[in-house]
This record gives sequence, C-alpha cells and structure tokens, in this order.
Amino acid sequence: MTIKLHDLVQEIGAELRGDSDCIISGVATLQNATPGTISFFSNRKYKQYLLSTKASAVILSPEDAQEFKGNAIISQNVYLTYAKVATLLKPKDNVQAGIHESAKISSNSKIDPSVTICANAIIAEHVEIGKGCYIGPGSVIENNVSLGEHVRLVANVVLCHGVKISNRVILHPGVVIGSDGFGIANDKGNWVKVPQLGSVLIGDDVEVGANTTIDRGALEDTMIEEGVKLDNQIQIAHNVRIGAHTAIAGCVGIAGSAIIGRYCGIGGGVGILGHLEIVDRVEILSMSFVTQSITKPGRYSSGTPVQENAIWNKNNARLRKLDELARRVKELERKLEKK
Amino acid sequence: MTIKLHDLVQEIGAELRGDSDCIISGVATLQNATPGTISFFSNRKYKQYLLSTKASAVILSPEDAQEFKGNAIISQNVYLTYAKVATLLKPKDNVQAGIHESAKISSNSKIDPSVTICANAIIAEHVEIGKGCYIGPGSVIENNVSLGEHVRLVANVVLCHGVKISNRVILHPGVVIGSDGFGIANDKGNWVKVPQLGSVLIGDDVEVGANTTIDRGALEDTMIEEGVKLDNQIQIAHNVRIGAHTAIAGCVGIAGSAIIGRYCGIGGGVGILGHLEIVDRVEILSMSFVTQSITKPGRYSSGTPVQENAIWNKNNARLRKLDELARRVKELERKLEKK
Amino acid sequence: MTIKLHDLVQEIGAELRGDSDCIISGVATLQNATPGTISFFSNRKYKQYLLSTKASAVILSPEDAQEFKGNAIISQNVYLTYAKVATLLKPKDNVQAGIHESAKISSNSKIDPSVTICANAIIAEHVEIGKGCYIGPGSVIENNVSLGEHVRLVANVVLCHGVKISNRVILHPGVVIGSDGFGIANDKGNWVKVPQLGSVLIGDDVEVGANTTIDRGALEDTMIEEGVKLDNQIQIAHNVRIGAHTAIAGCVGIAGSAIIGRYCGIGGGVGILGHLEIVDRVEILSMSFVTQSITKPGRYSSGTPVQENAIWNKNNARLRKLDELARRVKELERKLEKK
Repeated sequence: MTIKLHDLVQEIGAELRGDSDCIISGVATLQNATPGTISFFSNRKYKQYLLSTKASAVILSPEDAQEFKGNAIISQNVYLTYAKVATLLKPKDNVQAGIHESAKISSNSKIDPSVTICANAIIAEHVEIGKGCYIGPGSVIENNVSLGEHVRLVANVVLCHGVKISNRVILHPGVVIGSDGFGIANDKGNWVKVPQLGSVLIGDDVEVGANTTIDRGALEDTMIEEGVKLDNQIQIAHNVRIGAHTAIAGCVGIAGSAIIGRYCGIGGGVGILGHLEIVDRVEILSMSFVTQSITKPGRYSSGTPVQENAIWNKNNARLRKLDELARRVKELERKLEKK
Repeated sequence: MTIKLHDLVQEIGAELRGDSDCIISGVATLQNATPGTISFFSNRKYKQYLLSTKASAVILSPEDAQEFKGNAIISQNVYLTYAKVATLLKPKDNVQAGIHESAKISSNSKIDPSVTICANAIIAEHVEIGKGCYIGPGSVIENNVSLGEHVRLVANVVLCHGVKISNRVILHPGVVIGSDGFGIANDKGNWVKVPQLGSVLIGDDVEVGANTTIDRGALEDTMIEEGVKLDNQIQIAHNVRIGAHTAIAGCVGIAGSAIIGRYCGIGGGVGILGHLEIVDRVEILSMSFVTQSITKPGRYSSGTPVQENAIWNKNNARLRKLDELARRVKELERKLEKK
Repeated sequence: MTIKLHDLVQEIGAELRGDSDCIISGVATLQNATPGTISFFSNRKYKQYLLSTKASAVILSPEDAQEFKGNAIISQNVYLTYAKVATLLKPKDNVQAGIHESAKISSNSKIDPSVTICANAIIAEHVEIGKGCYIGPGSVIENNVSLGEHVRLVANVVLCHGVKISNRVILHPGVVIGSDGFGIANDKGNWVKVPQLGSVLIGDDVEVGANTTIDRGALEDTMIEEGVKLDNQIQIAHNVRIGAHTAIAGCVGIAGSAIIGRYCGIGGGVGILGHLEIVDRVEILSMSFVTQSITKPGRYSSGTPVQENAIWNKNNARLRKLDELARRVKELERKLEKK
C-alpha cells in the first residue's frame, strides 16, 4: 500500500505542511525510518532523533512542528493521528474466509456464511456467530455462546457456556471467559463449591489481552462494558463490572463484585478488593492496592519504588516499628510542651 | 427442576418457617428475584433488598429471620445452606458420555467406559482415567498421567507427564500442571537447566482456577493436598506443598519449596518466598509479602492501601528516608534527656 | 541408565573421592536417597540429612566434604555439578520423530525431516522449522514464524505471525509469543487501537515458563536475548528488551519499552514500569517496584514483609500520615534548637 501524503491527510483529517505529493508506504520509528516512511514525535526524550530522521514525513504537534523542517502532519493529538495513519497503512490480513475442514461445529449452531473458522476450532451446541467473525485455531466455544459481528478470537481462546460477546471484540491467545468464579462456602473447615450460575457479557469494541481470565458471575453476570481495553494476564473475578472506556494494564487482579467506573485508567499490577465501588474517571497508578471504595475522581497510588537494598532494609526495619516511632514523637512533643 | 420448600429443606437439613408447599425452581439475588426463586441474605449492606425482595423464600440467620416476614430457611451458616440449595437446583450438565471421534487416544491407555472425552482432546501413552471423568475439548494429557474418578478438565487444560490427579478434582481452562520448575544453575554467568524429575500430586476435591500453573518438583513431588481451592492465575513453583483445605485467591505466587499449612486462607496477589514454612490456620491478607516462616496461627498482612497520589507521594518520600527520621527522633530524645 | 562413579566424574569434570567403581543409576534428595543414587548438599539447613543419607555418593563443596565420610564428588559449584549429573542420568525422552496425522501443516512451510510434530498441532503458511524441533500437541504456529534448531514447544503454545525463535529454546505449556502489545490512543475518551507492527525475537537457549506472555513490538521488535530464563506467568509488554543471561522469576510484569540489562536477576512478583533502562548485573528482589532507570549495578528492593495484622494496621496507619510526622519532628528540632 502506498499513498500520497496529501491523500493520507485527507483520509485521517489533519493539517499537512510540506510536499503533498510525497509518497508514503509505511510507518517507522524516527531513528530507524527510511525514505518513504512516516514517523511520529511525541516524547521529547527522542528530540535528537527528530532532527536526524530519514522519514519522509513526521506527525507532530504545532509547537514541535516549529523545530522541524521536513514534511509534517500537524496534530493536536499526535499519537491518535499516528494510530489512524498506521491503521490505514497496515497490510490487510490475508484471511481466507470459510471453515477449515478440521473445525468441529455442531449442526445446531447458527454461523454467518462470512465467518472464518480455523483449524481445530471447536463450536459446541446452540452457538451463534455473527457476520465477519474470525475464530482462530484451537479456540473452544462452549454451548449457548453468542458472538456479535466482526469478533476476533486469535487462537486457543476459551469461551465457556452462555457467554455473550458483542461486536468488534478482540480476544488474544489464551484468553478464558466464563470460567467458574471462586465461590466456596465453609463447612466446618472444608470448602463446598457454590455453583456459578451467572454469565459474562462483553460489550462492543472490547479488547482482551493474552492469558487474561474473566470469571462468570455467581448469580448475575460479570460485565465488561463497551470500549474497555484489558491488557495481558489480568484476572477479573465473578460479578465484577467494568465501566465503559476504562483501560487496565497487565497483571491487575480485581476481586469479586467490585464495580469499576467509566473512563478509569488502572496501571499494571494493581490489586483491587471485592465488594467496593470506584467512580468514573479514577486513575490508579501501577502496583497500588485498593481496599475501599473510591468516591472522588482523581489519581491514586500506593506503590513503593525500589531503593538500594541496604538502604531499603534500614527504612523497612523502621517501618515495622513506625507506630512506636510516632508514639515517641508524641511523647517528645508532650515533654517539650511542659518545659 | 422444581421442588417444594418442604422437600428442599429435607434434602439439605435446615429449619423451615412459612409455607412448606411453596414451589421453588431456582435461585436469585434478593434484588432480582422473581416469584418461584429462593434467595439468601448474609451481607447486612443489602438489608433494603431483603425487605423488598420478590423471592418466594429467603435463606437467613435466626437473628435476621426476625426482621423478615416471608418464607424462610433458617440456618446458622447461610452461605453454606445457599451453596447446597443452589447445587440441588442447578440444571444438570447435559453431557453426552463417550469419546468424540476427533479425540486422539493412545491404545495403551486405560480409560473407564463411563468417561467423556471431548473434541480434539489428546491422551498420550499409558494414561489412566477413572470412572466418570470429563476431559474437555483441546485438553492435553501427556504420558503416564493418572486421573481418579469424576475429575473434570474443562477445556484446553495441560497435564504434563506423570502427574497424578485424585478424585473429584476440577481443572478450569488454561490450567497447566506439571510444567518444569524454574531450576537453573549458574555457570560463570550462563544458566544451565536443572532437570525437573519430580511430579505433581493433586489430592481429592481440589479445584484449580483458569490459567493457574503448578510446576513439577525438582526431585520430589509438588503436592496439593485434598480440599485445596485455588483461584485463577496462581503460580505454584516446584516442590511446594499446600496443606489440606487451604484456599488461595487469584494472582498469588508461591516460590519453590515453600510449605503452606492446612486450613490457611491466602488473599489475592500475595507473594510467598521459597524454602519457608507456614503453619496451619494462617490467614494472609491480599497483596502481602511473606519472606520468612510463619510459626504461629493468626492473621498477617503487609499491603499498603492507596491514597490520593499527591498525598502518597509525600508520605512515600518520607518513607525513603525513614531511617534518617528515626535517627533524628533518637537524637531529639537524647538532647531532651540532657536538658 | 547406570554409570560408574568414575565415568560420571570423567563426563562432567569434577573431583572424585571414594569408591570409583560405585554404580550410580539416578539422583535423589539426601533424605530420600536409596543405594545406587547420588545426591547433593548445598544448603546447610539440611546438614542432618547429609549425615544420615543412604545415597551412594554426594556432591558437595571441598569444605563440606571434610565432614562427610561417604563417596563424594567435590565441586566448587555444587548445584551446577548436580545439574550436569542429573542431566546425564535423566531418562531420555522417548519421542517418536515424525508428524502426527492429525497435525495441520500448510504445504508451503519448510520443515526439517527430523522434526516431531504432535497431535493437533497447527502450522500456518510460510513457517520454517529447523532440525530436531519438537512441536507439542495443540500448539499453534501462525504465518511466517521461524524456529531454529532443537526448539521445544511443550503443548498448547501459541506463536503469533512473524515471530522468530532461535536455537534450543524451550517454551512451556500455555506460552503466548507475539500477541498484540497494549497500544491504544485516546480519542476524546474513547480508545483507538494502535496497530502492533513489530515482532518478537527470542535468542538461543531461552526458556519460557508456563502461561508467560510476550507481546510483539509496536513498530520494532520485542527482544529476548540469548540465555534468558523466564519463569511462569510473566508478562512482557511490547518493545521490551531483555539482555542476555538475565533470569526472571514468576509473576513479574514488565511494561512497554523497558530495557533490562544482561546478567540481571529479577525476583518474583516484581513490577517494572515502561520507558526506562536497567543496566547489566542488577538484582531486584521479589515484590519490588521499579519506576525509574537503574544506572548502577547492585541489589535493589522495596518489598514490605508481613507482620501480624494488628501490628501492621497500626504501622500502616502511621505510614498514611508519615509526612505529617516528619513535619512534627522538624518542628521539634526547631523548638529544641531555640531553647
């Protein structure tokens, strides 16, 4: 795919400066760009690369454009413009529609003729699969699952019985949706399994990263609303609800019945306890621990960055006696008051 | 499945108050119950829903029963009674016993005729599978694995060679049991693989959550004793031993040769170092870090809950100099003493 | 496999003391050894077992050898010597080379005749697989992947399109390599997917633990250099580079574009932010959080070990007001100065 800079800008809606006839055939980083590619500049750490880049054009902000002499696509949202350009220039997947002969499909499932089903995929009973879906190799779809249109299961994805997936959802390899929630009742020390009778609903345009797991609800449904983006290796427990357009980075764990608001951002490795509620537009920084509801939008954190081990050991030893230290300070204040 | 309240109570052994002829056909939450369903009340946060529920009966404690006028199943252990009721009312899985034609099964494996083996399951050499087991689609069972009775591999489970699974074990999608432990020896900077020659033993009634991994022992066996319940995305390293009836929430990591006692409860995201021992009846709260043996039963923690980021940043900056602060307090005490 | 102690020592290059004709047929722990096995002693906690072991020979250090009367292999690096002995004595995998009839292989892939491809493995278009590789059951290899020689995919491994794997790499069950990185651009609150156009390069002798995920680069390639050892359930984001011979324990998360040096050691549960650089020979202890570049070799940490919950709660309550406490100390110092 090649395109004139002028036509590219038309397609994505941005401001062009320079040679509008310049031919673009791909994207690249500033430092490794070759003529014919377009790059972007959004992190000032890489200023040196902007000045020496061989890219035929660069996407950058109005301010940065002043310091750059080459062909420029000027945008208030450089990364978004880059995303659009890269999507436009991306080689199209050469997927052969149709059903691989090795796929196992029940006769009572309703599968749109435009669907692609790859080798060794397994489709159980009463499954519905909408227009343009791609069911990657080794994927397992249990009974009564429904998929909207243009859903993509990359490979080895498991959708357990009754799960409902909306449109344009992308599920990366190893994703499990609808596994039983961790419901156990204690009977004099022994654990008794509590049936997990709910399901999972996944909204439009959700993307779920590799090996992420989303458990089915205990009685009602676990819900991932539209536009939510989940990174890899996330664990979402039963009855959790994640509000629309929230993004969650890798290795996060969210315990049962937690409700996360819309437009939230959750950093990697965060742990969130169950039966609490986080309002819309909350940002939680990486490696934090949420134990109570968050009722005000804003930015929260509790991660402790590393120090040299010898220094941290000393600080940590004091932390283990911090209550005592605080009492000693109180006592000092009392004594000094009296003098 | 429908059942009279009277018969239900007979089956599970609890106290009935109200209309014993009332017909029950399912379970529901208090707030979404419809006539014909039974619900339960155990979390006082939901008191309002108890008073307005449309459920035909509610499971609750003797104290709470006094505040409720409808049909009641009265129990000292509401959640356990609910678990029994829900299990009784749960629609039975309509599993077709037998072996799917696409399953690959070695001729020298011993498989009970009552076993269900789903599409594309793979059973290698000298495998033994007991009565009533369910081998879900895409599961891989390597050489010399043995399964007791009524074991359920939901889908895409991998059991590596020689692993021994007892009775009534449930393994959710993506579980890997018997992968090589992380054994490496250092040879002047380069790492040399240490063969992992042990196996994994899984006791009766163990349940293992989606994408959880349990490594084989280096020389002896990793052991998960009977009744242990493991949530999703847990990592259990080689030679670990987990005592009977211990429950572990999601995203926990347990390093090599750690020994965890019986009847322990471990919260989500906990990290436990290797070569240590935790006695019976220890509770470790979420996001904690265990670095040494725990020799006394009790409740332990080290998680740090979030604050507003601006506040946490200030506190954390002080934490990084806490040893110095403690020295300054000491100095103040010394000076004040002298005055 | 049985071997004389003398021959064993010849093979691995170590010092022998005692009966060189002694026959060895396997390895065992000190406490469970039987005659005919060889064991090793490297952890002084197990001293009692050394004195009572039934092993026919023990690998130990020159110092420890003085306290032991039996047959000894004396080594300055006991664990390495043990690794070599165990590898030598390990029963060879009885793998039947060849391609299982149920494997799906595109006709345009180049597969060395010595390769083993197991049941239900799927090899897409234009894949190259070198000498002696083992493609375990249920594994999926997408288009344009290349594997060097003697690569082992144990089972249910997914290699996404274009991924390049070098020689003698071991990928344990559930590993996903080349899934899309978490690239999203914000468009007035909604997230737009950023195409992930790079790939993943895995160097020689890398081992990747069960259910670990490694994302493809956004524009350039995610790189895991030679000799890197990754444990289970690790998440490596797009554009990360991990230097040669670095070892990383389970449950670690590494965010996008982080560069990790050579010969580093990273403990379990560590979180590392993106767009930072860690130099060679850095050790990061378990459950630590790295937020900035580390420019000096050494040992770093920030994990907080558990305390009894009642004590930790008090300390943690003080931590939440540590800035205030520090101000009070400052004020005390000021007042005392004036007196």
